[in-house]
Amino acid sequence: MSKNPAGPTSQSSTGPAPARGVGRPRSAEADLSILEAATTLLAERGLAGMSMEEVAARAGVGKATVYRRWPSRGALALDAFMSEFRSQLTLPDTGSLRGDLFASLRAWCRAVSKTRAGRMLAGLIAEAQRDPQLAVAWRERVFEPLREQQKSLVARAARRGEIALDTDADVVLDLVFGAAYHRLLQGHLPLNDRFARQVVDLVMDGLAPVSAAR
Amino acid sequence: MSKNPAGPTSQSSTGPAPARGVGRPRSAEADLSILEAATTLLAERGLAGMSMEEVAARAGVGKATVYRRWPSRGALALDAFMSEFRSQLTLPDTGSLRGDLFASLRAWCRAVSKTRAGRMLAGLIAEAQRDPQLAVAWRERVFEPLREQQKSLVARAARRGEIALDTDADVVLDLVFGAAYHRLLQGHLPLNDRFARQVVDLVMDGLAPVSAAR
Repeated sequence: MSKNPAGPTSQSSTGPAPARGVGRPRSAEADLSILEAATTLLAERGLAGMSMEEVAARAGVGKATVYRRWPSRGALALDAFMSEFRSQLTLPDTGSLRGDLFASLRAWCRAVSKTRAGRMLAGLIAEAQRDPQLAVAWRERVFEPLREQQKSLVARAARRGEIALDTDADVVLDLVFGAAYHRLLQGHLPLNDRFARQVVDLVMDGLAPVSAAR
Repeated sequence: MSKNPAGPTSQSSTGPAPARGVGRPRSAEADLSILEAATTLLAERGLAGMSMEEVAARAGVGKATVYRRWPSRGALALDAFMSEFRSQLTLPDTGSLRGDLFASLRAWCRAVSKTRAGRMLAGLIAEAQRDPQLAVAWRERVFEPLREQQKSLVARAARRGEIALDTDADVVLDLVFGAAYHRLLQGHLPLNDRFARQVVDLVMDGLAPVSAAR
């Protein structure tokens, strides 16, 4: 479906250590510099203000190097966003779905309310509303990979009998994270730890009796 | 807070009946024509493609008439959207919060998935992400009036003892409608009646035990 945006950072490293490019092959080093330059521009100016020329210049590489790896500005922007965002999220394993969802939602809320990831996320969702190509790339590179991770938490809880086996994970996740996206995009109320707790408690209280009744 | 966008249509009508301007005072007739022209342009081209000049021309009024009533393009766009959207929503009184939330969410899902209101809504939320003035007007003219109506359903249920008196109505509504906005803006899954039913059942099952335990 989508290539792994965090790919270059997970390669093994050997040799001397200048900044983040710790002895990685030249191309992985260039990838990191490109993603970092793109993230900075995206956070400062939004997608419209992020040109491939300036990304290349800031990363100290040729434009061809950028295009070789990322065929479009949208694809690069999404991978840049994900490299920033993913590092702030957690894939918890607390032993309960309540604990996992809370840890996961709290990390999401903290990332979007306390770091530049929040405005980047809102800006990219906004752009995707009027750019159908970006919308497709958005789903493939950001939305679906995150949702697959979140679904694994729900599936694990169903396997251990914590919730009904036929629980619709998409509906659960639309409730939990949809509520959070709602506060991000409407800006009507804070995305704090208390909100994360309230959301998860209400959804879990809704799920639990279904399981208990079986 | 905000003026009532549906104001003109609720005035009493007398006299002959050409189309929608049924014997209303000239100014109310002009308001309706302006809102209708704005809605059409907004649906066709989005906010960026809706100029005050063209709204005036299509409505058959002078530009000054438009500006007298709506000081900015954003304010007009939001009132135009609300005049279209509100007529498709319901303010149900089914006797139970489960019934009220379901009727309300189902009407919302149908409106955004089956009429032009959906693309308008997504487009305006997108514009509000990069236009702080529009974001403020959005909350005052669209988001808060709708939320106040929805809150009245939750408050009524609390008064009749159906849910705990200290239920956080904002969290309940962020869950129920946040899940629906999420599907609208991410486009990953359908906004059908089944979804509305699943969302409301899960949230109501989460609320009910709290009440029963008291």
